[in-house]
This record gives sequence, structure tokens and C-alpha cells, in this order.
Amino acid sequence: MTSPAPRILAFAGSLRKSSLNRRLLRYAIDGAVAAGGQVEELPPEFLQLPLYSGDLEDNRRYPADVEGWRAKLREAEGLLIASPEYNHGVSGVLKNAIDWGSRPPNVFGGKVAASFGVTTGLWGTARSQMSLRLILTPLGVWVVPKTVLVPHGGQAFDEIGQLKDPKLREELAAIGRILAGAVQAGIGRLA
Amino acid sequence: MTSPAPRILAFAGSLRKSSLNRRLLRYAIDGAVAAGGQVEELPPEFLQLPLYSGDLEDNRRYPADVEGWRAKLREAEGLLIASPEYNHGVSGVLKNAIDWGSRPPNVFGGKVAASFGVTTGLWGTARSQMSLRLILTPLGVWVVPKTVLVPHGGQAFDEIGQLKDPKLREELAAIGRILAGAVQAGIGRLA
Amino acid sequence: MTSPAPRILAFAGSLRKSSLNRRLLRYAIDGAVAAGGQVEELPPEFLQLPLYSGDLEDNRRYPADVEGWRAKLREAEGLLIASPEYNHGVSGVLKNAIDWGSRPPNVFGGKVAASFGVTTGLWGTARSQMSLRLILTPLGVWVVPKTVLVPHGGQAFDEIGQLKDPKLREELAAIGRILAGAVQAGIGRLA
Amino acid sequence: MTSPAPRILAFAGSLRKSSLNRRLLRYAIDGAVAAGGQVEELPPEFLQLPLYSGDLEDNRRYPADVEGWRAKLREAEGLLIASPEYNHGVSGVLKNAIDWGSRPPNVFGGKVAASFGVTTGLWGTARSQMSLRLILTPLGVWVVPKTVLVPHGGQAFDEIGQLKDPKLREELAAIGRILAGAVQAGIGRLA
Repeated sequence: MTSPAPRILAFAGSLRKSSLNRRLLRYAIDGAVAAGGQVEELPPEFLQLPLYSGDLEDNRRYPADVEGWRAKLREAEGLLIASPEYNHGVSGVLKNAIDWGSRPPNVFGGKVAASFGVTTGLWGTARSQMSLRLILTPLGVWVVPKTVLVPHGGQAFDEIGQLKDPKLREELAAIGRILAGAVQAGIGRLA
Repeated sequence: MTSPAPRILAFAGSLRKSSLNRRLLRYAIDGAVAAGGQVEELPPEFLQLPLYSGDLEDNRRYPADVEGWRAKLREAEGLLIASPEYNHGVSGVLKNAIDWGSRPPNVFGGKVAASFGVTTGLWGTARSQMSLRLILTPLGVWVVPKTVLVPHGGQAFDEIGQLKDPKLREELAAIGRILAGAVQAGIGRLA
Repeated sequence: MTSPAPRILAFAGSLRKSSLNRRLLRYAIDGAVAAGGQVEELPPEFLQLPLYSGDLEDNRRYPADVEGWRAKLREAEGLLIASPEYNHGVSGVLKNAIDWGSRPPNVFGGKVAASFGVTTGLWGTARSQMSLRLILTPLGVWVVPKTVLVPHGGQAFDEIGQLKDPKLREELAAIGRILAGAVQAGIGRLA
Repeated sequence: MTSPAPRILAFAGSLRKSSLNRRLLRYAIDGAVAAGGQVEELPPEFLQLPLYSGDLEDNRRYPADVEGWRAKLREAEGLLIASPEYNHGVSGVLKNAIDWGSRPPNVFGGKVAASFGVTTGLWGTARSQMSLRLILTPLGVWVVPKTVLVPHGGQAFDEIGQLKDPKLREELAAIGRILAGAVQAGIGRLA
């Protein structure tokens, strides 16, 4: 195919340096790259934003770090999001970053997103992914139906930080492939 | 375009003969047809199914009317759903029909769906569409981000049952177009 | 305490004769009875109702079986609900029964409810209980914060149908006690 | 009544100085006080917290401003929350503050909470209140079923910032009364 490579942004909804969720990104990224995608992984600093307040806005101008985050989103056609689960929802960190991205002009419209996550407990971020879909869809985002939920995160990775279960690795790669394919298919431009 | 016409099934989540939600379908259908879709509108009888019970299943064989409903879903690539809001969610009627469709083999996987609705009150089915997305997505359905919420349904239609507001009619048509385009783009076959 | 015994209704959201969810009820019922509650367990037939349609209503008069279900709800002050999870939500069966109960006059207002459930898979009805809370709360129902989610239902019961894990049994009993206590405390009458 | 006055904390989920949501608090506070409650309204600075990161925790010790917020929550038995709606959910600001409060030991358990909100648009925070309930309930919070949704916030207040509609003011007062009554009834201590 000669169409340009889908531009994909990958990030985790956690600021923690040793975030288990961030470790999941690489498998999805590999899948996206294998399908022709061009992926940039954002370091956590990009989500280290001021808490949203209307008082920090000035006629569609935003604080410098917010503008940096918004610029990264704007350039992307697809999003790979490792979303941890805090209190049955997305992290306040991720919600705050999305809230900034949604400010006019909304930079999310027409993108495709895929999300997944890991918890140390039983539930594997099931509720976080549901919550994230409800937030992204009304912003005009197409959400890849497939997700990957990794429970028992404390035992899920080996000593060099690799996800042990090859089936989970393959499922994450599939999500990356599907995302790249959906961007390639041009659904974000339908109107 | 020479690819075959997207096959789209349209139905409402209400059994009521004079359902306001069913009246919305025609505008979305017009949009889908204009974009090259081939649409079948199901009469409400197709959702008049027995309440789901595992005791009515026999090794992946289902009651005759359930098989009829499942066959219609299976043939379709796209779904246009007018979903009323009962108690902050989809109707029990629609949920029951989806529950039957999800039984193995799940007939929803890989489809694209769009939904919208009307209420007599203020809220225009905002919660119903959210609830429907949470139900359909895990079944492997791509959901069109755009929805149309019509409040004040008692005043929204003229004496011959037509939606008065041309902007709402156009938005429903846009949903039909986007749905047909997304089926055409082949996202349902990504894996 | 000399106040009358809290009147509690217990039922499952599944019609299946051998429903695993129905088996959970007894433990919660025992807890409610130990706390002074008077509990009636409804057989599944009470939820075997016609699918809701406005065409079946006649000026606040409902089909005979619907009136029977509504009468049971009306007499109760507390509800113990074993809610299975179908497609990330409550069953269509249960939603349909709630839809009928919500018709004017809404028979749910001022009640206290507690819910829990079991799945054969990993998730233990986590999403179903969330969905049920979103449905019941706007009907004026106080929901007991505690729930019990039982995963791996195929291995959870012994050969005579008893829940093996004493911790889960005690948690279900606690839910029954809390429910009876909350009814006793009179929160349903606050306005 | 000789039992001690219910201790209630009131705050808004917005940092904006002229927040419309914060204006709603006074009416709910008045209702709570009239029912015997002792209410403290928190200024927005209390939610101006660092973004949550596990790296900021040290064996259950938290940053000083986080400890201040947690101390306020810990002392309270009831919460009055004016929750704006950002992107179909609670604000990232509020979610971040709740995430901090949920860290061990969770300071929310056994409280009663009531919430409401205002939007400039049509929807009056309907989705935000749903989202907030799903976050608070699993933390062990009893949620007052009644909420108040104020749409068209730009026209809802008069020139001195008072809510024009006496019916909405009374409904907010009712929420305060119900909250105080529920705390008084002792449901938070049921176990």
C-alpha cells in the first residue's frame, strides 16, 4: 500500500516511573509498526500538566505544557493508551490530560483509539477501559472494540520486565495492528 | 465504487406501534442509502422474543423466532439502532434481543453500529446511548462516535410524523452516511 | 428493638432453573434474617413478564402478571438482588422487570437495595452491578455500597450446591445485615 | 434530637474562581444546616493537589497538601459535592482528589454523599453524576439517590449570583436535608 504511514501516539495514564501499564505499550506498538504504523511513545512528563481550570485559559490559548500535549495529540491519527484503573475509572491524571485536549478546538475528533491495562488485583482494568470509552467516544473518537485486560500484574512480568504470557503479548500486538489498519482505512475522515 | 453495497439493518428498541424512536430511523436510512448502502428496516415483531433463559438453549440451537432475529443480524454488516431510554439505560426489550444475539456463535462481531434516540423529556436518551455502547463494544462492534439525541419528543414531529428540525434530520442522515462509509472501509474485517 | 421487621424481597435476575446466581441469595437472606428482617424469596416465574410496551398499558393499569410483580415490589422496603452479567450489563430479563416496576406510580422509590452475582468466567459480574446501580439509583433507591462478586462460578459451589468459600458466604450475610439495618434506620423515608 | 450534629464537608469539583457549580453549594448547605448539620465549605485550593503518582507516596505518607485534604475528608461524615461535567464524566481535578483520598487507608468508607451540578449546555451534568456514583460507591460511600441537574447555567443565576428558580433551590435544600438525615440515621456504621 502506498498511502502514508498511520501516525500513532502511545502513552500510559500513569505518572509512575515503573508503571506496569507503560510496559504494555511496547507490545501494542510492535503490532502497530508491523502493520505499517509510525509510532511515537510519549514519556510520562507529557501528562504532568496543571490541573484544568478555566482560569488558565485565555481565548483558546493554553499553558505551554498543555500546548505541547495538545500538539502531540493533534499530529496523531491513532492513539494507543495504557489506562490504569483507579477507583473504577481512568486515573485523574489521564482524565485531566483528556480534559485539556478537549478544549476548543477539540484535538481528538476523527482519531482512532485503542486501550488496555493491567492491575495488580483481579480485575485487569475492566472498568477503566469502559470509563475511557465513554469519555473518548463523545469527543469524536472511534474506539477499537478489542481490549486486553491483564490481572495479577505483580506476577505478569518476568525479571526483565517482559510480559510472560505470549497470548497476551499477541493480543496486544493485534490491537496495534487493528488500530493501524483502522487509521489506514480512513474512518476518521468520514462525516 | 464497485465494491458491493454495505448491508445495513435498521431497527428500534421499542415495541410500541407508534414509537417515536422508530420515526427517527427513516432519516438515518436515507443517509445510508445515499451513501450506497442497502438497508432493511425490521418491524418490531423481530424483537418480540422470549425472555432469555439458558433453559431455552439446546447446544447452540435457539427458539425459532430467536433464530430469525439472529439470521437477520448475521447477514448485516452495519446496524442502525433507534434506542429509547428506559430508566437511564436501553430498554429491557433491546437488551434481551442483544442477549440472544450474543449467544454462541456471537453474531455481532465485526459489525459497525450507530445509535440515536428521542425522549419526551429533556434528556434525549443520552444515557441510553452510553449504555448501548458499553454493551455493543465488548461484543466486537465498532460504534460510530456521532449520535443524535432528540429531547422534547412530544413537540419534535409534525402532524404527519416528520421530524420538524432540518438540522436534526441532516445529523441523522450523516450518521447513516458515516455508518455506510465505515462498513465500506472494511474495519469490521480487521483482526 | 421494637420497630417492625424490615420487609425484604429477594430475587435473581435469571430465569434459569439451576441459576448459580439464585444460589447466592440464601446467604444474603440468612444475614438479613439474623438482623431481624422478614424476607420473601421470589421464584423466577415472577420475572417471566411480557416484554414492556406502552401498548400494554391502559391508564396505569398493567397486565395481570405485571401487577403481581409490582405488588410484591410495593410491599417491600428492601431488595436483595442476585444479578447475573450478560454482555457487560444486567440481564434483559431483569431490565425488563425493572422497566415495568418503574411505570407510574414508580414502585421503587424509597427502597434500599443490595446486589451481588456470580459468573463462570473471571469477572464475577463487576459490570452488571455497576449497571444495576445506575438503573436503580435514579428510581429513588438507596444502594448498599458493598457488593460481592464471585468469579469462576463453575468451581465455586460444592456437590449439594453450597458456596464453598466461607469468606464469600460471610460477605453475602454481611450484605443482608447491612440491608436490614439500613431499612431499619429509615433512610427510605427521608425527603 | 440529642445526637451530635452530622459533620458535613461541601466542595465543588472545579478550580475556577467563578465556578457556577460552587454557587449551587450554598442551597444544599442551607438544607443540611436546617436539618441540624454542621457544614464546612472547602475553598477550591483544597483540590489544588499534585497529580497522583505512586512515586509521591512513602509508606502511607503523602504530600502535605494531600494530607490536608485527606484530613478534611476523614473528619466528615457526609459530603456535598457540586460536580461539573467535563467530557461526560467528573473533572480530572475531582477524580485526582478522590484518587488521593482513596489511598490506604481509604478515607471515604462509611460516608454518605450527595452530588449535583450545572452545565451551560443542555445536559445539566447528568453523566457526571452517574460517573461520580460509580467512583464513590465502591469506596464504601452511600449515595443519596436524589440529584439536581441544572441545564442552561448561563441563564440560571441572577445578577448577584443567586439561582433564579425557587424549585431548584428547594431541591438542592432537600438534598442537604436528606444527607444530614442519612448521616444522623447512622447507615455509615452498618457492617
